[in-house]
Amino acid sequence: MQSFTVSTTSRQQIIDINKQVKDIVKDSKIKEGLCLIYIPHTSAAVIINENADPNIMLDIIDALNKVVPQGQWKHDKIDGNGDSHIKSAILGPSETVIIDKGELQLGKWQDILLAEFDGPRIRTVLVKIIGN
Amino acid sequence: MQSFTVSTTSRQQIIDINKQVKDIVKDSKIKEGLCLIYIPHTSAAVIINENADPNIMLDIIDALNKVVPQGQWKHDKIDGNGDSHIKSAILGPSETVIIDKGELQLGKWQDILLAEFDGPRIRTVLVKIIGN
Amino acid sequence: MQSFTVSTTSRQQIIDINKQVKDIVKDSKIKEGLCLIYIPHTSAAVIINENADPNIMLDIIDALNKVVPQGQWKHDKIDGNGDSHIKSAILGPSETVIIDKGELQLGKWQDILLAEFDGPRIRTVLVKIIGN
Repeated sequence: MQSFTVSTTSRQQIIDINKQVKDIVKDSKIKEGLCLIYIPHTSAAVIINENADPNIMLDIIDALNKVVPQGQWKHDKIDGNGDSHIKSAILGPSETVIIDKGELQLGKWQDILLAEFDGPRIRTVLVKIIGN
Repeated sequence: MQSFTVSTTSRQQIIDINKQVKDIVKDSKIKEGLCLIYIPHTSAAVIINENADPNIMLDIIDALNKVVPQGQWKHDKIDGNGDSHIKSAILGPSETVIIDKGELQLGKWQDILLAEFDGPRIRTVLVKIIGN
Repeated sequence: MQSFTVSTTSRQQIIDINKQVKDIVKDSKIKEGLCLIYIPHTSAAVIINENADPNIMLDIIDALNKVVPQGQWKHDKIDGNGDSHIKSAILGPSETVIIDKGELQLGKWQDILLAEFDGPRIRTVLVKIIGN
């Protein structure tokens, strides 16, 4: 298992972690298998989508805010981040990508993204590769 | 492949299945690999989030009910659970967690949770571990 | 890694890809392991739910349209499919299913489904099986 950290700078923010994951896959020398990208957090998520237009990141956050606005949840009595937990539960803490010929089989427009919903924080990303 | 069952007691309910999954991982003697937690159902889901404050479970159900209320779907003509299918499709039937040094690499606040959207029922949870 | 293509015929459409995936699992001769079904696209998704009543497919699309309507997103300035990206990010590009005794361990009502949100297009589905 490998890991790296990402420092987020806003309460809500989607950050590209493609390069870090690709470097781990390259260093692993694994030629074919599966790569799990997993965060051990409950107010952030891992998603895969297009980062070429950064507006997509803003659109995803806007859409989630409309559905799950901040400030109206039972958990807010404890630490004010009920919306962050709900958004994270919906998107999920991981994605799995195929490795073939030593490379992640991401589509042309796909990027691996860390979605922060309760920053700024330092987030840990775990990467586990299974294969040979 | 291992499995266990969970008896749900309400139409909608999120239940912690951490202990059952951890026991299976321990019994497997697998030291490093991946653990898939999967339910073979279409009106329930597996998610990972924080159960330390049970209000988070209620908040997740409340948020989904606002977006996908019961009683207004085409499938309701057949068995009245159109909303249950939609919620399950959005959250998905599985989560994958890393095993390292013989232990599930859940974050400090992460729990593995079964989300019931058409209970009460007896639900089956399948667990598959890959590794060595 | 195996792959196949699916031709979608509408802007939004959910298509059953159960048979294609089952054939790949059968041909692989793998008896126990994991099967990842993954699409290298950012405006489509893979989900698992019930296709026996095709109205469930329409209900899922209707629910997503209510939450994420077309035509009000920043990315629309570029190619008019901001909603497609958001829907895909929420549902995710993959699902993982257990293989046991040579067969996918889908539940009685579970089907593997390709969700198109920016068709009509030709979509590629990648399938990776890990096991023995």
